[in-house]
Amino acid sequence: MTEIRKVLVANRGEIALRVIRACREVGIKTVAVYSVVDEMGLHTRFADEAVCIGPGPATKSYLNIPNLIAAAEISGADAVHPGYGFLSERPEFADAVQKCGMIFIGPDPEHMRLMGNKVQARQTMEAAGVPVLPGTGVLESGEQARAAAEEIGLPVILKASAGGGGRGMKIVWELDKVAPTLETAQAEAEAAFGCGDMYLERYVESPRHIEIQVVADQHGDVIDLFERECSVQRRHQKVIEEAPAGNFGDEVRKQMREAAVAAARAISYHSLGTVEFLVDGDRFYFMEMNTRVQVEHCVTEMVTGLDLVQEQLRLAAGEPLGHLQRDWHPRGHSIECRINAENPVNFAPHPGTITALHLPGGTGVRIDTHVYQGYAVSPYYDSMLGKLIVHAPNREQAIARMRRALDECVVEGISTNIALHRWILKQAPFVEGTYDTHFLERNLDPDGIRAELDA
Amino acid sequence: MTEIRKVLVANRGEIALRVIRACREVGIKTVAVYSVVDEMGLHTRFADEAVCIGPGPATKSYLNIPNLIAAAEISGADAVHPGYGFLSERPEFADAVQKCGMIFIGPDPEHMRLMGNKVQARQTMEAAGVPVLPGTGVLESGEQARAAAEEIGLPVILKASAGGGGRGMKIVWELDKVAPTLETAQAEAEAAFGCGDMYLERYVESPRHIEIQVVADQHGDVIDLFERECSVQRRHQKVIEEAPAGNFGDEVRKQMREAAVAAARAISYHSLGTVEFLVDGDRFYFMEMNTRVQVEHCVTEMVTGLDLVQEQLRLAAGEPLGHLQRDWHPRGHSIECRINAENPVNFAPHPGTITALHLPGGTGVRIDTHVYQGYAVSPYYDSMLGKLIVHAPNREQAIARMRRALDECVVEGISTNIALHRWILKQAPFVEGTYDTHFLERNLDPDGIRAELDA
Repeated sequence: MTEIRKVLVANRGEIALRVIRACREVGIKTVAVYSVVDEMGLHTRFADEAVCIGPGPATKSYLNIPNLIAAAEISGADAVHPGYGFLSERPEFADAVQKCGMIFIGPDPEHMRLMGNKVQARQTMEAAGVPVLPGTGVLESGEQARAAAEEIGLPVILKASAGGGGRGMKIVWELDKVAPTLETAQAEAEAAFGCGDMYLERYVESPRHIEIQVVADQHGDVIDLFERECSVQRRHQKVIEEAPAGNFGDEVRKQMREAAVAAARAISYHSLGTVEFLVDGDRFYFMEMNTRVQVEHCVTEMVTGLDLVQEQLRLAAGEPLGHLQRDWHPRGHSIECRINAENPVNFAPHPGTITALHLPGGTGVRIDTHVYQGYAVSPYYDSMLGKLIVHAPNREQAIARMRRALDECVVEGISTNIALHRWILKQAPFVEGTYDTHFLERNLDPDGIRAELDA
Repeated sequence: MTEIRKVLVANRGEIALRVIRACREVGIKTVAVYSVVDEMGLHTRFADEAVCIGPGPATKSYLNIPNLIAAAEISGADAVHPGYGFLSERPEFADAVQKCGMIFIGPDPEHMRLMGNKVQARQTMEAAGVPVLPGTGVLESGEQARAAAEEIGLPVILKASAGGGGRGMKIVWELDKVAPTLETAQAEAEAAFGCGDMYLERYVESPRHIEIQVVADQHGDVIDLFERECSVQRRHQKVIEEAPAGNFGDEVRKQMREAAVAAARAISYHSLGTVEFLVDGDRFYFMEMNTRVQVEHCVTEMVTGLDLVQEQLRLAAGEPLGHLQRDWHPRGHSIECRINAENPVNFAPHPGTITALHLPGGTGVRIDTHVYQGYAVSPYYDSMLGKLIVHAPNREQAIARMRRALDECVVEGISTNIALHRWILKQAPFVEGTYDTHFLERNLDPDGIRAELDA
């Protein structure tokens, strides 16, 4: 087992702080990196060292591999944590870290490559016995696509092999449109990802997004830490997440958990990972596997009592899973609201300076944020200000607690989506737990959200 | 079962906010009361209504029963929550609330009277089979006291029957000093409590303070929610609390839990209550029973996942305990640090305005506070700014988490005892869990604490 003594955190915002906190608690030194506009970020303050890695635009700093590697080498870090987003699923970054003799806190670059190629991932999962939607490999022609769509049945969805996370997808409802849509989609994928490979799958009209957290060591041992329900989405971006999933059969849960563990085993995966499933009634299908810590890992922490980032550090150091109990049961219910600096009605980002800030507290309330009163939200990065997470004995109480916590939030100087969350928490499909991934976009009610602004 | 629709919260500071939050989550309206100096308190902002009840000094506001009753009647409250401190253990307040047809959220006034009289409480507990220290009833004379001390063995402790919480106690180490000390103590008790009754008990030189949380309904059902370790004290005031207690035999724990439940049953107690025990090695003795929610109830919430104030509301409405599982097991370990506005070396209170405030967050961190940036800490009330509570899978990780959280705290404009907590968390007796109630005062190291200030 290798000892990790100093971790460079190749990220910013709340996840950088999250990793720094985890390291600090286990006695690992930390190096923060920051772009020029992030000099006042809390991650630079709470880390043991901080290194400037370039100007504001992420391509010149947080996405700049040579700068990050140089910062790690200068500071004597022996490991690099990529956080989520930015370079966290770029195998070339993991390669570069490892080539310099440092530990990449995540799986092997090969796992990232395999799961980054959606066609290959699909085939690997199918071979491992994990359910996948009826679909194809890489499409060679419009005719082949049309024939496949005819066989599978409409509607179908065209997906970019290099896409993922909701990017590079097109739904097709008419057979005659399959070939022309493929052509457009190939061109777009080529432009966006440098690879025009497309495949198609049956399109499920009212799916739920449910994912399983897996934890795997370097010695072949894999466990799962139950599911998260992430169907409250807008443009494929998660807005609210929960654990456990409500309105959910124990038998389906069990099968999904087994499938997720089988998926990780099939590729000899190690580190934290998330197997995302599309759920259609009682059936579930592999969607993709994320080879990093998720934004929403906190809800799993709340119901298990574990610190997933600390587990990730231990796994990266080669520790076996042995220390983890096998009989964890989720306790209670947890909900996470992503708080963004944006107009709650039209979702336009709203950078600016936070002139007043009061965050909720008390029983069952957790806050993960990098912002403070006086903090300037930069237009360069994503608009998430932080996450408000609650835990309570059951879902009904968790909803009540989240409402109470949202009511206590005071953020002045910028717009936030708090009113959107307050509105969502009152909608029947949410309260009853019967929502699917279209719930938010199909039910959006600007007047209802505006009313929450004034409440 | 009576429905509670509107609660007047007869308190201020973090506990008022705590109660308001609990009510809000279960759909009960709240009325805050405030003294003139507390107008800007968060409890006035987060309650549905707020009523001014008098000038700053507590005797003219938070301790003024007629003003509180008037506020409750004017606002149409149907129940009153006393919080802790102030009037929370004054049976005459509970009487007044009940006489006006409102529910007192606590036990019967008779329970408060019985437990407020320490001699009677001791006798009741002895009769119920709960271990008490060798001792006496109310002492009639110096000769009787001397004879009792001789029989029990020195040292002994003289205690005021109307005291409690560490007030009205004197330790006697020499037989010849028993009678004269009694005389002085009687005069002091008469002056302080309006009753000079004293009794004596064997004095335990290195005790631990361990208490059991009990929860009892109005139908005779009682459960306990394990123990809290509260031995980090200064002048009988708790500074740090933990759950569960470390270095503690399962058999003793079991006996104490059974004794606490027996104690509650013996007096047909209902509501939340805490049975405090003095622990001497493997032996434990009844100290007193607190008939209210404790400051440190949060550590029990963290390891059980329950909301004790919501339970208290349900019990006051006459709900049976039935909904509570009987098989709760504490999960992980929780530690609470009381953060006070005081000089960390000499403990002098330090009122003033908080000019900058940053509180920690992240995994396993809970904050209960009524203060905010710009808040003026008043000299009229106790100096507690709030409580920092952590939870982690085990005690070692909880200590690491608390250290990390304390390191993140920024409070400017006033002095706080954060440096004291940082120092305590590094001391071997604390780290090893071998401390007793004298640990803090016997080991205080001003230079060590000052070093934490500069760290």
